[in-house]
Amino acid sequence: MASESGKLWGGRFVGTVDPIMEKFNSSIAYDRHLWEVDVQGSKAYSRGLEKAGLLTKAEMDQILRGLDKVAEEWAQGTFKLNPNDEDIHTANERRLKELIGETAGKLHTGRSRNDQVVTDLRLWMRQNCSKLSALLRELIRTMVDRAEAERDVLFPGYTHLQRAQPIRWSHWILSGAIAGNPLGVDRELLRAELNFGAITLNSMDATSERDFVAEFLFWASLCMTHLSRMAEDLILYGTKEFSFVQLSDAYSTGSSLMPQKKNPDSLELIRSKAGRVFGRCAGLLMTLKGLPSTYNKDLQEDKEAVFEVSDTMSAVLQVATGVISTLQIHRDNMARALSPDMLATDLAYYLVRKGMPFRQAHEASGKAVFMAETKGVALNQLSLKDLQTISPLFSGDVSRVWDYSHSVEQYAALGGTAHSSVDWQIGQVRALLRAQQA
Amino acid sequence: MASESGKLWGGRFVGTVDPIMEKFNSSIAYDRHLWEVDVQGSKAYSRGLEKAGLLTKAEMDQILRGLDKVAEEWAQGTFKLNPNDEDIHTANERRLKELIGETAGKLHTGRSRNDQVVTDLRLWMRQNCSKLSALLRELIRTMVDRAEAERDVLFPGYTHLQRAQPIRWSHWILSGAIAGNPLGVDRELLRAELNFGAITLNSMDATSERDFVAEFLFWASLCMTHLSRMAEDLILYGTKEFSFVQLSDAYSTGSSLMPQKKNPDSLELIRSKAGRVFGRCAGLLMTLKGLPSTYNKDLQEDKEAVFEVSDTMSAVLQVATGVISTLQIHRDNMARALSPDMLATDLAYYLVRKGMPFRQAHEASGKAVFMAETKGVALNQLSLKDLQTISPLFSGDVSRVWDYSHSVEQYAALGGTAHSSVDWQIGQVRALLRAQQA
Amino acid sequence: MASESGKLWGGRFVGTVDPIMEKFNSSIAYDRHLWEVDVQGSKAYSRGLEKAGLLTKAEMDQILRGLDKVAEEWAQGTFKLNPNDEDIHTANERRLKELIGETAGKLHTGRSRNDQVVTDLRLWMRQNCSKLSALLRELIRTMVDRAEAERDVLFPGYTHLQRAQPIRWSHWILSGAIAGNPLGVDRELLRAELNFGAITLNSMDATSERDFVAEFLFWASLCMTHLSRMAEDLILYGTKEFSFVQLSDAYSTGSSLMPQKKNPDSLELIRSKAGRVFGRCAGLLMTLKGLPSTYNKDLQEDKEAVFEVSDTMSAVLQVATGVISTLQIHRDNMARALSPDMLATDLAYYLVRKGMPFRQAHEASGKAVFMAETKGVALNQLSLKDLQTISPLFSGDVSRVWDYSHSVEQYAALGGTAHSSVDWQIGQVRALLRAQQA
Amino acid sequence: MASESGKLWGGRFVGTVDPIMEKFNSSIAYDRHLWEVDVQGSKAYSRGLEKAGLLTKAEMDQILRGLDKVAEEWAQGTFKLNPNDEDIHTANERRLKELIGETAGKLHTGRSRNDQVVTDLRLWMRQNCSKLSALLRELIRTMVDRAEAERDVLFPGYTHLQRAQPIRWSHWILSGAIAGNPLGVDRELLRAELNFGAITLNSMDATSERDFVAEFLFWASLCMTHLSRMAEDLILYGTKEFSFVQLSDAYSTGSSLMPQKKNPDSLELIRSKAGRVFGRCAGLLMTLKGLPSTYNKDLQEDKEAVFEVSDTMSAVLQVATGVISTLQIHRDNMARALSPDMLATDLAYYLVRKGMPFRQAHEASGKAVFMAETKGVALNQLSLKDLQTISPLFSGDVSRVWDYSHSVEQYAALGGTAHSSVDWQIGQVRALLRAQQA
Repeated sequence: MASESGKLWGGRFVGTVDPIMEKFNSSIAYDRHLWEVDVQGSKAYSRGLEKAGLLTKAEMDQILRGLDKVAEEWAQGTFKLNPNDEDIHTANERRLKELIGETAGKLHTGRSRNDQVVTDLRLWMRQNCSKLSALLRELIRTMVDRAEAERDVLFPGYTHLQRAQPIRWSHWILSGAIAGNPLGVDRELLRAELNFGAITLNSMDATSERDFVAEFLFWASLCMTHLSRMAEDLILYGTKEFSFVQLSDAYSTGSSLMPQKKNPDSLELIRSKAGRVFGRCAGLLMTLKGLPSTYNKDLQEDKEAVFEVSDTMSAVLQVATGVISTLQIHRDNMARALSPDMLATDLAYYLVRKGMPFRQAHEASGKAVFMAETKGVALNQLSLKDLQTISPLFSGDVSRVWDYSHSVEQYAALGGTAHSSVDWQIGQVRALLRAQQA
Repeated sequence: MASESGKLWGGRFVGTVDPIMEKFNSSIAYDRHLWEVDVQGSKAYSRGLEKAGLLTKAEMDQILRGLDKVAEEWAQGTFKLNPNDEDIHTANERRLKELIGETAGKLHTGRSRNDQVVTDLRLWMRQNCSKLSALLRELIRTMVDRAEAERDVLFPGYTHLQRAQPIRWSHWILSGAIAGNPLGVDRELLRAELNFGAITLNSMDATSERDFVAEFLFWASLCMTHLSRMAEDLILYGTKEFSFVQLSDAYSTGSSLMPQKKNPDSLELIRSKAGRVFGRCAGLLMTLKGLPSTYNKDLQEDKEAVFEVSDTMSAVLQVATGVISTLQIHRDNMARALSPDMLATDLAYYLVRKGMPFRQAHEASGKAVFMAETKGVALNQLSLKDLQTISPLFSGDVSRVWDYSHSVEQYAALGGTAHSSVDWQIGQVRALLRAQQA
Repeated sequence: MASESGKLWGGRFVGTVDPIMEKFNSSIAYDRHLWEVDVQGSKAYSRGLEKAGLLTKAEMDQILRGLDKVAEEWAQGTFKLNPNDEDIHTANERRLKELIGETAGKLHTGRSRNDQVVTDLRLWMRQNCSKLSALLRELIRTMVDRAEAERDVLFPGYTHLQRAQPIRWSHWILSGAIAGNPLGVDRELLRAELNFGAITLNSMDATSERDFVAEFLFWASLCMTHLSRMAEDLILYGTKEFSFVQLSDAYSTGSSLMPQKKNPDSLELIRSKAGRVFGRCAGLLMTLKGLPSTYNKDLQEDKEAVFEVSDTMSAVLQVATGVISTLQIHRDNMARALSPDMLATDLAYYLVRKGMPFRQAHEASGKAVFMAETKGVALNQLSLKDLQTISPLFSGDVSRVWDYSHSVEQYAALGGTAHSSVDWQIGQVRALLRAQQA
Repeated sequence: MASESGKLWGGRFVGTVDPIMEKFNSSIAYDRHLWEVDVQGSKAYSRGLEKAGLLTKAEMDQILRGLDKVAEEWAQGTFKLNPNDEDIHTANERRLKELIGETAGKLHTGRSRNDQVVTDLRLWMRQNCSKLSALLRELIRTMVDRAEAERDVLFPGYTHLQRAQPIRWSHWILSGAIAGNPLGVDRELLRAELNFGAITLNSMDATSERDFVAEFLFWASLCMTHLSRMAEDLILYGTKEFSFVQLSDAYSTGSSLMPQKKNPDSLELIRSKAGRVFGRCAGLLMTLKGLPSTYNKDLQEDKEAVFEVSDTMSAVLQVATGVISTLQIHRDNMARALSPDMLATDLAYYLVRKGMPFRQAHEASGKAVFMAETKGVALNQLSLKDLQTISPLFSGDVSRVWDYSHSVEQYAALGGTAHSSVDWQIGQVRALLRAQQA
């Protein structure tokens, strides 16, 4: 009868367990990343059992030696997976039993698989966040080094992609380096999260709460959003039309046919990864939505997301560091892109300093721009007489306005584009790097 | 001098191409999926070149034979990748040249790598959508088969997870089978999209537009949303508290310790995959957002998304088919879950049929429910006299209301839960299956 | 005692219904959009009831007149909402009862609120998709008109934002117009979906399935992704550095101070809305994930999403039409951006036509580019003798290669950038527009 | 001529500014939220100007009085918007000028609109996060109060929605209260972010970086994910099948017809809002992706997202507090849901305590469960003799295992379900609440 076979209608498979289900259920393919922390966690747990009197000293020593052997096999690539090893935890326990016999069975007293899964992942993330953090620091350090060395290069600042005012090239670099800085905060958060000195407050929550995963994925998404914006800027600056920067060959795909056409593949890939990383974050939150409390198998989705995003971030941070460290800048083109009309705001400030309310000064400067346009000359070519028809406050010292270096030096407030201000920013970021490293 | 080395500041790497960049840029790791369609596309293209007079007949034959050899090597697992094979297209062309010499160089006359990439992916998706479509049909067929065989089983229909009215179990099954049906529409769309008889209208758009990928990912997301809802229902129906269904061992993870505790891992994984699949769709759309027109390397993200989602869908559809085909239903529990208060709406309809406006009848039935509650009896235990204090329209024939089978038979409109209506639905879905297969 | 008051611990509110819950639960604030279709649906339903013998002819007429009066009040802005009107359906029914008395109670015989909700939304979307479709056609028509009028303007085609080959400006315009075309397909899908001639197959599915909403939101997301890419192109083309196009004042925010600085706010907003629209799509899918079957209040989220996205699309399509129709192009700058090195591929094709395999021709052309660079001259300034040192196949007719108009005319395959090919595309899109309008 | 009209082809609009564009561009509709912080920011800025010598004391006083008047008009609802007031900043400045004349023009010396936008939003969020934080504390406090009062209620703990082991009801409540706790961390982050004592490090980054918005939206998304899970649990616990809890009428939609059918609308809405809130987060990140640095109009999307999410969170937190504070629990049903097989793990621990390795004990307990099933008796009905056939370690004291209260008391580790452990958790959460309030 149908129900005896356990299968009533149709279906491709006959037997007791559907092999596709087995594969679908199994996490061993990506669990391998966890072998090291799984052994580390089990060693700590066996010490705990001995302390609680559930293992003798001899049993604990036997287990510790066995686990070291398991780790050795993984490290040397000689660990052999069985088809029945559903995940890394069963694989390691199975092997331990082969190595040391029945005592292995005592290791799991009072801990569930779900505990192990979440502990291992937390341990792995602690290790891994620290690696990513070092890579991010390397990128920021490279940016600060460049910012320091190229402080004297001016080029147009843009808003809405329209040329606005002259700024220092270093000011742009630092705007990116500082945007990388949120990690500093989040790493603190993650470190606190992963600091096993602090106790998970509730056992039900402990196995099912994945905030530390969601927060990691979101940190990565936000970090990638920043990097996608920096990549967009550099792609634009590298077009024929802008010609401010040139990617080194190491980070572009040249064409033997069209030497003028060096494609910024590295930057395009960085820009694109923002989507992929955020997709993982979105996917995890959707999986968590409306899930009943405590452990459900749905939570297995967390690990592949973490591993993939971690790999992506690691590659992106290294490539970005390489791009920035080898980028050539075209100082002449940058200088040529500056034009007197970008000093129209400075002209208004000149009048403000002579006592005119800003809104009136703004209007007067607009008239000057319009007059220059009408006469077909550059703004700085208007004669003093011309300017005085607009406002009697103009006098000979207005000529000092038409100096780009002088212009940027006005913005000496902290965070501005003056030499001193950029130096201050460099100092701040360096201090941050030192603090994070400590 | 710094600029000679091509690297100005810091950075970990020395040389001409950063190996991490090379790996970051390379798509060969997941491109392997495409070997078959890449050869297929190149064969078609070489025939086109011969027709256009750009290849002689002899050259074409030489290329075709060479490509067959390349395909043979892939099929037999003997194709050897070079470290310099950046993607499947360069790998196959490189190998072709080794096999047939300089003539290989003529194959790429007038087609760009970007053309090849998008053509290959479209060819692969045509093949693959057809496989997924077959799997989906298999799932729907299994559901219809069950629906047909178990038409006589009644159980509670729920809204807001509150028991509402009695329905047929088959009615529930078909609500899922029909929800799977959107694929029918989308496959048409995809088929049209992939029908190479139709010409891409604009060459700029052709290499950069990824609508066919986005639509596939969205179809998969929507399909998974439906399956996640079906999985949620079955997880609930399988709890101790509902006890309507029981998963076969093949699709659950039993516990040797707690035989009562069979975890519905298969259904939980199906539910969770909705997040992962949608995450890929979200990621691709974010990558596309604001991208300049024509080809940009960002578009390389499309392939891994398609491959991963396709694999996930394939596993999910097969596991879902297995789950449905082996699911045990507990008819007694289903029957026991029906209670007279679920017929309160029928009681109102009884009065409507006797001429009372619905809103009044609804109120009268509510009074009856309240009266039963007050008296502490089931709704069908109220005497005729009791009912007549509420409305004189009640008479002896009201007893026929208290029959669950009679209740469901009232919903004989198409789409309803009556026997005939469920049969009609079965017929409709079967017709759809036949139409899709044709 | 605490439990008597129905409230055990804390909480801000005392009474029977929490006013914040009432507001939270109520949909009347955005339901207003639906008054027209709600009346329309109810009129159709009362005709159905009369046919089924559940209303007399007189009762039906009374209800129809009442509903017309309700509609009139909405249209004239005199309909007064009660604080107890939870949604549009209860509001209209309440008012109908005030107008015609008890007969109003018969209108809802055999239909649930959930039926009404979903029917109204489908009716509204049918109306509204038709309006959006007209707006999209208007945008496409404007683009085709421009493409036709400006066929003779050449400018650089870009890949990776690097100048690649000369193309017609019309070719770029059409790449956008065609990308808008997916709506054609989806509208068919939606139209089929909303065609009430076709019957919803399953009553359980009918009230809880929101595919038509999800598909609308996804269509909008994909359409916005295309528009965001077109906006990005135009923002770039409008920078000082590109200077290919100039936005009309009607669609930019000028600055009285810096006349050179016209911000492309319209295009930036179009680009940004891709995020907002997709966010709604993502939100709905997340809400649907894992939801138990049939109606749950969660589904109430669908309407605000549809209304907001519909409003956004309507504004975006009109603004995009305005932008395109008033955009000025700078033909001289476009022409100036073309340079001989963009004809390097043509030089290779010249050799292919003389019998050289493409890969060799590609290499030879690369040598010519390199030679020109070394000599510090433009590619077309190399003498015939220079070229013949690279390949003896070069002869006097090579001079014809250096003609941009001739270059684009080579791409006469359908979809290409030749005059005839662009004309063909214009014809195809016009035919599509006519077909959609019919 | 066409170009004179500023419009070349088609388009619906004639004139200088497209009214749809004006509306599309304008943010005044939702900017109103900001009037208070805009005035507050301007007052602080005018004090800064006076200090810098750019305003006299008299001018500053005039501006401060004018701004107070503007604020008064907003507060009293008498502020009149002009059609030309594009945003809140222009509206307030326009009104100030009407009130105090030309001096108003000095207020904007050296600050851009973009500075103002971002400062206002940060100020608003500081205010608002503090309100949301208070609401969250109220919810957590309500949960802790209940947890404390109902410590003695036991019911089944579930994993995979399968009954696992007996736990305290308070243990479940606290698992939710603790999950709410991430806000504690994030508020610190936000507070630091909004602490204007700290200086934004880079002026370019300051106007375009929206991390504080993205982080707020993500905090809200994660918080809603937790609440959606709590809502799901309570919806399940409130079904007829579970019958553990009953929503108060204030938070459910009753049906006059079916008194047994009280729909948990409040919980369903809470569950659904996770989608909406996350959709806003996804939308913002997509808008930010690939955006060129500094200000672009795309950033205008941030405000509506923040306002809508803030409103949603405020309603959700209050409704959740109301639901929890008025929820009735059915102690008898909870007790009845416990069954001896849920003590199978305890039976294994009994053997572990007698010296058996855990894996063997687990197996022995499994045999006992199987034996009970075979005999058709409950697990605790097996005789001592029966048990001793499985292991000689069983003795008379095994009877103590069959006590649910004793079972939960075993889990006395911090975070467990023992009385003392739950008390400790209550203490921890109370301490957290006190710390956050301070």
